Amino acid sequence: MLELYELAGAEEDRLFSPFCWRTRLALAHKGLPMRSIPWRFTEKEKIAPSGQGRVPVLVDNGRWTADSWAIAAYLEATYPDRPSLFGNGAGPALSRFYNNWADSVLQPGLIRLTLLDIWRHVAPQDKDYFRRSREERFGVSLETVVADRDQRLEGFRQSLAPLRLTLQTQPFLGGEAPLYADYIVFGAFQWVRCISDYAVLAADDAVAAWRRRMLGLFEGLAGKAKGYAVE
Amino acid sequence: MLELYELAGAEEDRLFSPFCWRTRLALAHKGLPMRSIPWRFTEKEKIAPSGQGRVPVLVDNGRWTADSWAIAAYLEATYPDRPSLFGNGAGPALSRFYNNWADSVLQPGLIRLTLLDIWRHVAPQDKDYFRRSREERFGVSLETVVADRDQRLEGFRQSLAPLRLTLQTQPFLGGEAPLYADYIVFGAFQWVRCISDYAVLAADDAVAAWRRRMLGLFEGLAGKAKGYAVE
Repeated sequence: MLELYELAGAEEDRLFSPFCWRTRLALAHKGLPMRSIPWRFTEKEKIAPSGQGRVPVLVDNGRWTADSWAIAAYLEATYPDRPSLFGNGAGPALSRFYNNWADSVLQPGLIRLTLLDIWRHVAPQDKDYFRRSREERFGVSLETVVADRDQRLEGFRQSLAPLRLTLQTQPFLGGEAPLYADYIVFGAFQWVRCISDYAVLAADDAVAAWRRRMLGLFEGLAGKAKGYAVE
Repeated sequence: MLELYELAGAEEDRLFSPFCWRTRLALAHKGLPMRSIPWRFTEKEKIAPSGQGRVPVLVDNGRWTADSWAIAAYLEATYPDRPSLFGNGAGPALSRFYNNWADSVLQPGLIRLTLLDIWRHVAPQDKDYFRRSREERFGVSLETVVADRDQRLEGFRQSLAPLRLTLQTQPFLGGEAPLYADYIVFGAFQWVRCISDYAVLAADDAVAAWRRRMLGLFEGLAGKAKGYAVE
């Protein structure tokens, strides 16, 4: 049985890491059963065998792997007979850009809308760590980061143009069926849904329609997870 | 022999359409010889059999195809034994996002830096059409569009983060060798190089190193084309 260390909030079933959601959906795509181990920011020692201090961390038969991209590559190499995460061929290389777009455009855009909502849901023992580390990163208080979110919303939605245009012509980024590229991008929306009721998407957006499809995958794996309703 | 209608400037060998460069490189990738037919904005009747008024337009054995994405799909379907443009598998679906990122982020960013330079190079008979249609689109004069380009440059370079991060970990978007995703994105940089000496990239940018590799492909097909030196 694979084990996955996943970031949890005050409630241990509130999973709110975009990176952990990438991995959770990748495991479901491969049809690999796993045991989820809730983890909090301040529990660095629990994942020390991975050689670093962040989740997701996957443990497969005693082998530890950290970093969502490395885990996806590991799963693809280790379980090649299961459905491909990348659609074979040049899929792994072509999926890199999605990873970097999510990390450098999508998630930074979302965090400026929801940072305070995240703080509200982190475990009590993580609250000080989270506030201190994020306020150091942004140079202002959590409250200030999100104070102008209503003004930022339109610009954020515009930044989704490449995603929107793509999903207007095909049901998933991977084509007729979802691939790891979908899990990368969806992980960000699921992260936000789990800790915020802020409507980051308009209901009539093609991106929102795709999000609904993603929420329903694997018998509603993401849609049934603890979080806020969307639309 | 395939024929390709390509946008040309005052000189018929100054090719400055990002979309035509996508197709030109796709044909080279497939190893398909072609005859280039220089075309100007105001020569709508020449490509009327394509059913629309823009280039690239490909004519293959009497069959007309317009639109760079449709042409790439046509070439892949018609010449399957030649090297794949998409890396097989889910490659076509995964390449869509690149097309939409180039169209909605990269090219709009570049045009605000170089619009007046384009006008300087269009054919005399196209100059009025170009100025009128673009000033209508932007709502201000060509001169005004680019007046603050030095202030915009840093923001433009930041918008390339997903591209930069990807090219810091692999030589091409397609992986170890270029694919159509590379031609889509490179087409924009080549377009600009053909009509402007403005340094849109810093020389030490990983994107610039990739551009050098792209300029050298197919015996320097893009690098030898009429334009301005980069770096």
